[in-house]
Amino acid sequence: MSNNPITRIGVFTSGGDAPGMNAAIRAVVRSAKYYNLEVYGIYRGYEGMIQNDIKKLENINVGYILERGGTFLKSARSAEFRTPEGRKKAYDNLTAHNINALVVIGGDGSLTGAHLFYKEFGIPSIGIPGTIDNDLSGTDSTIGYDTACNTAIQAIDKIRDTAVSHDRLFFVEVMGRDAGFIAVNAGIGSGAAATLIPERKMPIETLIERLKSRAKAKKQSNIVIVAEGGKSGGALEISQKVKKFLPNYDIRVTILGHLQRGGSPTSFDRTLASKLGVAAVEGLINGKADVMVGVINNKIVYTPIKKAIVDDKEVDEDDFRIAKILSQ
Amino acid sequence: MSNNPITRIGVFTSGGDAPGMNAAIRAVVRSAKYYNLEVYGIYRGYEGMIQNDIKKLENINVGYILERGGTFLKSARSAEFRTPEGRKKAYDNLTAHNINALVVIGGDGSLTGAHLFYKEFGIPSIGIPGTIDNDLSGTDSTIGYDTACNTAIQAIDKIRDTAVSHDRLFFVEVMGRDAGFIAVNAGIGSGAAATLIPERKMPIETLIERLKSRAKAKKQSNIVIVAEGGKSGGALEISQKVKKFLPNYDIRVTILGHLQRGGSPTSFDRTLASKLGVAAVEGLINGKADVMVGVINNKIVYTPIKKAIVDDKEVDEDDFRIAKILSQ
Amino acid sequence: MSNNPITRIGVFTSGGDAPGMNAAIRAVVRSAKYYNLEVYGIYRGYEGMIQNDIKKLENINVGYILERGGTFLKSARSAEFRTPEGRKKAYDNLTAHNINALVVIGGDGSLTGAHLFYKEFGIPSIGIPGTIDNDLSGTDSTIGYDTACNTAIQAIDKIRDTAVSHDRLFFVEVMGRDAGFIAVNAGIGSGAAATLIPERKMPIETLIERLKSRAKAKKQSNIVIVAEGGKSGGALEISQKVKKFLPNYDIRVTILGHLQRGGSPTSFDRTLASKLGVAAVEGLINGKADVMVGVINNKIVYTPIKKAIVDDKEVDEDDFRIAKILSQ
Amino acid sequence: MSNNPITRIGVFTSGGDAPGMNAAIRAVVRSAKYYNLEVYGIYRGYEGMIQNDIKKLENINVGYILERGGTFLKSARSAEFRTPEGRKKAYDNLTAHNINALVVIGGDGSLTGAHLFYKEFGIPSIGIPGTIDNDLSGTDSTIGYDTACNTAIQAIDKIRDTAVSHDRLFFVEVMGRDAGFIAVNAGIGSGAAATLIPERKMPIETLIERLKSRAKAKKQSNIVIVAEGGKSGGALEISQKVKKFLPNYDIRVTILGHLQRGGSPTSFDRTLASKLGVAAVEGLINGKADVMVGVINNKIVYTPIKKAIVDDKEVDEDDFRIAKILSQ
Repeated sequence: MSNNPITRIGVFTSGGDAPGMNAAIRAVVRSAKYYNLEVYGIYRGYEGMIQNDIKKLENINVGYILERGGTFLKSARSAEFRTPEGRKKAYDNLTAHNINALVVIGGDGSLTGAHLFYKEFGIPSIGIPGTIDNDLSGTDSTIGYDTACNTAIQAIDKIRDTAVSHDRLFFVEVMGRDAGFIAVNAGIGSGAAATLIPERKMPIETLIERLKSRAKAKKQSNIVIVAEGGKSGGALEISQKVKKFLPNYDIRVTILGHLQRGGSPTSFDRTLASKLGVAAVEGLINGKADVMVGVINNKIVYTPIKKAIVDDKEVDEDDFRIAKILSQ
Repeated sequence: MSNNPITRIGVFTSGGDAPGMNAAIRAVVRSAKYYNLEVYGIYRGYEGMIQNDIKKLENINVGYILERGGTFLKSARSAEFRTPEGRKKAYDNLTAHNINALVVIGGDGSLTGAHLFYKEFGIPSIGIPGTIDNDLSGTDSTIGYDTACNTAIQAIDKIRDTAVSHDRLFFVEVMGRDAGFIAVNAGIGSGAAATLIPERKMPIETLIERLKSRAKAKKQSNIVIVAEGGKSGGALEISQKVKKFLPNYDIRVTILGHLQRGGSPTSFDRTLASKLGVAAVEGLINGKADVMVGVINNKIVYTPIKKAIVDDKEVDEDDFRIAKILSQ
Repeated sequence: MSNNPITRIGVFTSGGDAPGMNAAIRAVVRSAKYYNLEVYGIYRGYEGMIQNDIKKLENINVGYILERGGTFLKSARSAEFRTPEGRKKAYDNLTAHNINALVVIGGDGSLTGAHLFYKEFGIPSIGIPGTIDNDLSGTDSTIGYDTACNTAIQAIDKIRDTAVSHDRLFFVEVMGRDAGFIAVNAGIGSGAAATLIPERKMPIETLIERLKSRAKAKKQSNIVIVAEGGKSGGALEISQKVKKFLPNYDIRVTILGHLQRGGSPTSFDRTLASKLGVAAVEGLINGKADVMVGVINNKIVYTPIKKAIVDDKEVDEDDFRIAKILSQ
Repeated sequence: MSNNPITRIGVFTSGGDAPGMNAAIRAVVRSAKYYNLEVYGIYRGYEGMIQNDIKKLENINVGYILERGGTFLKSARSAEFRTPEGRKKAYDNLTAHNINALVVIGGDGSLTGAHLFYKEFGIPSIGIPGTIDNDLSGTDSTIGYDTACNTAIQAIDKIRDTAVSHDRLFFVEVMGRDAGFIAVNAGIGSGAAATLIPERKMPIETLIERLKSRAKAKKQSNIVIVAEGGKSGGALEISQKVKKFLPNYDIRVTILGHLQRGGSPTSFDRTLASKLGVAAVEGLINGKADVMVGVINNKIVYTPIKKAIVDDKEVDEDDFRIAKILSQ
């Protein structure tokens, strides 16, 4: 699309942070150096682009961060970037720094911004999917999702210890506003009694039936996973409904919350982030623009951003079935 | 006190479970075997004593549990044990099993029960302090406290990743209804901006002042630890008060909850539990009764239960001072 | 293949243990119950089959094991099973128990045994790939591989702390006798200076050159990952060769060893194991035999065992390239 | 000793690094600021003092390092500091920076250096015990010891999974050249079959006897902990001796090695390091010099360095006894 060769890349993180973002930034910086390009870090996403919070990055700046959660470039929301004036200001700052290509690491909102910006100003940009929600098409997994799943099951492992010791029923709320990926994974991975997700409504009667039948089978622990955005309400609401049907149960609720956003990334997320960071730089060098880079079936794939952000990614049917069978 | 030699020990866990209880049970069973005594496990605490849920334990029953959280003997509340009739029933069941000594692992309520039971029926019993709250005198640390502190700081480490990335102010609620031990430790251990505990009221103005002065000093992260039982309210209430003073802050709340009760015990808790389990059995053999066994200054110490449960244990003044200095 | 309906499944683990094997056994037992089949556990693999160490399994037997490393059915080598007489004895024991289908969880050697057994006696069997080495075709990942990679990088994270503090060069040996999967993953995931694997010989001069160039670039840490089965020798041999060229380097060696075989399985391995366990039972019900069940591109796939054990699975070229770029 | 008020503190880490050193440096910097003193970081210990590798430290420099293993000030050996000329050069550099007090964080060798330096040049210095070996008097625990113990037992937990699955006998070598603290703790904490330490020679016959008797009792796992500096040799030598007596045992050896030096410090070590860092600064302000600050029975205590480095600290007799009873 762009005819001018890429010489200076701007990289930034945007939207909710996800473990592995630092590993992705590192990979962008190091591969850019490998290909003799310059890299500038834009702090606090689009907001920093507007505020001109932009600094040159060298290999030394990304040493010893691969294993850290969060993003050292920080992230922020930017109301101003939603205005044409804000975007113009951002463009001017990039131009002043001679930045002629962008790598944006974030979720669907962040990629939408990049798409818009490309259409308006033509600076080629490549998106890297970084979000614990795993709700982007064009990649089998988003950066941070595997870490969040592991954080969730490790927390639930601890909760199970106390649930079993006291024969309690626990409702554990995990993140995933519109997508039940973490919930279904954590449900299978923690041997949950049931998993309630936004995509599928489980009638309260079905849940009660399941719990009663497990009580008969003398299951040792009863943990119900609830995705935060479920239509039936969060863990607290559902626990209160269940309490009415099962007044003798000793019920507790834990909302895992922001725990799931942090922590040292897993092996999977580090490798994924490293791969996508290198592939983003190589994509820009090869003239790609307005695309998101992902890994599908272990292969690097570039998908038009417009296509990737249309969230049609769904939890696998097999996973639903297996979660159901194993919770009986 | 008792003139008859101990031949058969009943062991049980009671009250809120704590990581390391399994290690303590194991130590009781194995040291009893070492001294040629028999051991019976009483399931679900005093309730199981009344329900006659009592089984013989061999070394094989405590294999591979040292590292597990929770308690495989389970724990439960018993309303019936609070009645003379209930305690009589419990006593009859013990007698029917020829159990002539008890080891109870639990917190102050559990030890109070043992004290009462001893006074009424004369069965010698030794208490082992097992509670994450660390609120028992007669021991430097209770079983589970160190693990809970580590669980708390590891969770806060993850939260800090996302707090720093978004320049957010987090209120993290930790356990400790009447005692701020976990909170103060987690506050020092996680570099908190402030720590609010039941024992000391911090005026909201002081907290606001601290946060403002940290903002000036451009501290990277702002995490306030709140003990659940604080007089100023839980994390949620305090965060709402602060929000009024600092409307521009991006504030989040996480309640760690039952996470802190489970998980594989730390090295410290495993060693402590092992030591106390052996010392409880040796104490019974040596004619001790109605005492709690603890470790003070690395030495095993037996304290009358009545004295241990009078909760006058307080967070160290040095710890307060250090927490304050390091949060400036 | 078999015309008789499956009624009783024998399940066992064989070969080197891998984290997630317990989760797979649990899934086999619970899904068999779900489909109204009986399940028998065969202890210590083929050896237990010959020794008739076979016990009925109920849901209760697989409670609270999902999150544990190792295999509660144990594993062992069996010289006798390699003889026709041994296999006949094994067959007779299965017949005496009315076991008319098998699920074997293990690596290539274990699946080879199942294939041979099927050819000789016609008992339908399905293999589940359980090995940390990831060296089986017919599945994107084997059970235990993801956990082993995470164990490796977490260990290397600790080593990096001390490597950076002392400006030392570390050689860390990871498992993978014939396959560099763990090494390459750990190399990318830990930001290694170089990764030496069995599949590709790196001349010692290239390694020396890389280290010297990193020294110039003032890289903070220098960790070289060595797969145990490399042709250039293990970590110890290579470190000694390097020492001759770089006599002033402060060099240390750590061999991670059996650490990598144990530990609580990751979210990925728990989900994979659960999925494969259910799919193995469903496969048997649907008349499949002499196949291995795997997951390729998130879909359950059955591959003839004979095809799966021909180890032509190779580390991805992209991974090599990315490892190389990021280590410069 | 010194009549001039302290105005500028030099802080450095020396000797083998230990988790929690960063937390100690942070506490020194932050409490110095709290008391309106300046702080300079001396890189790479005595070597950096000689090379004049000295930089001013502000609060910002110690942000977000509390939870990291290693030491960002680095550590190194210095042959030159052992010479009077070297020490003179070091002194001149300190003087040039107007540094008039020192905090040294390290083990006995590092404290010895400080003692010598104080005697020669009179710059007041306070030592903070930082070593995983726990072999310093004047404190109940040294910084890093608790973390190392936890790293050891977590590794052994993983090894036990595979040991149990294969009925193997494992010899695990832990650190502790002259002191069996880590070994005895890990032995109790991991339920070891035996623990071999430098301080006490266990005849090979006793070990064989123990293993045979455990085999009879059908213990599930057999793990022998060996401290690296044991007179009977390391894990490898002992395993070979045992193999001769028990040729049918399936024996494996794992040397944990430098793993034990790194990793995020535990709650205990973070609190200890924070406390000692503050107390060191307060000690200097109060005119103390040539002392090591420690915590004994939860109280801060200053001990003359000369007394602290005379290593007469011994593993507690109770611990030996308990380790023995629980391994039967």
